[in-house]
Amino acid sequence: MINMRYFCSMFENQERTEIDQLGEFALIEHLTAKFQLENEGIIVPLGDDAAVFKSDENTVYSTDMLVEGIHFDLSYVPLKHLGYKAAVVNISDIAAMNARCRYLSLNIAISNRFSAEALEEFYAGFSLACERYKVTLIGGDTSASQSGMVISVSAIGYADEKRIARRNSAKENDLLIVSGDLGGAFMGLQVLEREKAVFVDNPEIQPDLEGNDYILERQLKPEARVDIVEMLEELGVVPTSMIDISDGLASECHHIAKQSEVGIAIYEEKIPIDPMTHSRARDFELDPTTCALNGGEDYELLFTVKQEDWDKIKGNPNMTAIGHITDKNSGLQLITQSGNSHPIEAQGWNHFSSEDEG
Amino acid sequence: MINMRYFCSMFENQERTEIDQLGEFALIEHLTAKFQLENEGIIVPLGDDAAVFKSDENTVYSTDMLVEGIHFDLSYVPLKHLGYKAAVVNISDIAAMNARCRYLSLNIAISNRFSAEALEEFYAGFSLACERYKVTLIGGDTSASQSGMVISVSAIGYADEKRIARRNSAKENDLLIVSGDLGGAFMGLQVLEREKAVFVDNPEIQPDLEGNDYILERQLKPEARVDIVEMLEELGVVPTSMIDISDGLASECHHIAKQSEVGIAIYEEKIPIDPMTHSRARDFELDPTTCALNGGEDYELLFTVKQEDWDKIKGNPNMTAIGHITDKNSGLQLITQSGNSHPIEAQGWNHFSSEDEG
Repeated sequence: MINMRYFCSMFENQERTEIDQLGEFALIEHLTAKFQLENEGIIVPLGDDAAVFKSDENTVYSTDMLVEGIHFDLSYVPLKHLGYKAAVVNISDIAAMNARCRYLSLNIAISNRFSAEALEEFYAGFSLACERYKVTLIGGDTSASQSGMVISVSAIGYADEKRIARRNSAKENDLLIVSGDLGGAFMGLQVLEREKAVFVDNPEIQPDLEGNDYILERQLKPEARVDIVEMLEELGVVPTSMIDISDGLASECHHIAKQSEVGIAIYEEKIPIDPMTHSRARDFELDPTTCALNGGEDYELLFTVKQEDWDKIKGNPNMTAIGHITDKNSGLQLITQSGNSHPIEAQGWNHFSSEDEG
Repeated sequence: MINMRYFCSMFENQERTEIDQLGEFALIEHLTAKFQLENEGIIVPLGDDAAVFKSDENTVYSTDMLVEGIHFDLSYVPLKHLGYKAAVVNISDIAAMNARCRYLSLNIAISNRFSAEALEEFYAGFSLACERYKVTLIGGDTSASQSGMVISVSAIGYADEKRIARRNSAKENDLLIVSGDLGGAFMGLQVLEREKAVFVDNPEIQPDLEGNDYILERQLKPEARVDIVEMLEELGVVPTSMIDISDGLASECHHIAKQSEVGIAIYEEKIPIDPMTHSRARDFELDPTTCALNGGEDYELLFTVKQEDWDKIKGNPNMTAIGHITDKNSGLQLITQSGNSHPIEAQGWNHFSSEDEG
């Protein structure tokens, strides 16, 4: 459940301690104190020049940056949710290799607009995700910035080499499977943007978020599908390729198609869309399929399996077959209910295209 | 040698391609194309959700953020040097555990003030350091920012568990050793700041950097002392504690003293200071010892060894014994040439203390 008290009032009515009152080293010690930093693999925990920990044979490593004003808008994203999401999107990248995340590091640069309490909120969310996903914090840096907030997270995980699923190994006739449902995070964002616009026009009006819990949670508190990685292992299935849906189904399909040198056919009617996503898309006069194809941040897993593995997956409520791999020359095609075929354009984010120097 | 053509003119007279002309994915592909991305340990190189690589038993991991206007000033730091330094400071953190860096990742957020060519310069420097230190790039993200440049680098290395040197294990009577010489990077910064001030007053005057090569290089193109890590192994010495000098000798001594619960005595006359550092400090009416104690960014290694290991190190021109570990109650003391004892204050950077929202 989204905590509405944060909405549009994050910097009001809160206790405020200036970050420089604490000093840099004390601040980092304070913020990391609540983390569960010990686990059996840790030889040197954070607080030294580097952390040292036991490693399995194959390290899976990913890193990602989130920039205020580009990737998130603090006028409607509570800092605690942002902290949770910053951890989850990186855990999701490790899951997208069919691997398990074990360690995270967190660097933040923030301006003095933020209080120590605000930073604590962010860390509380990050810490919650670490607990939830059984991941240990092994490092990080907190620095001043001249303006805004920049977050950089790295994730370290492990996998058996035989189970690793890349983007470049989908084969013709493989089935295309997606976990969960799509487009919800995007519709949640539309609701938040609408209420922000109302608030900017008239700060007296309270945001109307009633009845949108599911899609708001999809946007503000996404989860990484580590359960799918576990299920696939239990089912004895190794995906022939895999990616997580951060930029949108269309964009991720383009990555798999390009790197695997294949084409993909998706059946429109098979794309899983939650009724709330569908209904809200109609309210906004948007096409639900377009929302599912191009709305990012669902953090579901998109993967391909051999036809012969279908029997192991069939009927699993967490996974939906939405299409199959075709030959390279066929490109990416959406097959509509009426049987027509339309090429799918990738409309992933180009963060550089519309931003101006602040 | 510092390339003076960059000085104060980095954004002039250069070919300029807007970053958004390339698009985000194409940009990252373009920038990483020149890196040596294959090595025998790499199973999945960058370009997937995560990289996968072979791991030794003990992973040594460190991460660090560099923020424009806080950690660097692009009016006199050439982007190629900045790229080189961003890699080196992280390689140095791994060396400070008495370990060897094998992989780096690089995240950058930049505003549209920067051209694709400027970003290429930065990457060229980073790539040069990767080649020089035989380190493989395993990941990274390039994002827009609303203003300025933020760099986040992570480093992964390996070490035999028995050779790892922490900060918390110095023992009374151990000798305190430092590599190279100190204060040079700080004096280089003073020269750059002076010439920047002259330039701001009168842009017609060319910067006068003659005769300052060594200290400018200490500031703009520091090296990580991986050679010391190798030497210590060849000499059969495991330091009882170790740290790299990023914030200044005094600050690093405080870290060792605090974490090891010991005191430290440093002999002023033993602190290695290059003649150019000494001479320039006098020109600026600064005390050379204070520059060596509190001027950071030398990236030398500071470590302690057992007395019985002294014979193995004695006479090595790369290492100087500057003091010894005392009991906790003695605190940190500087012993002057006349034999007087003065407490050493830590004056490390507090980046939060003097910055305003831009």
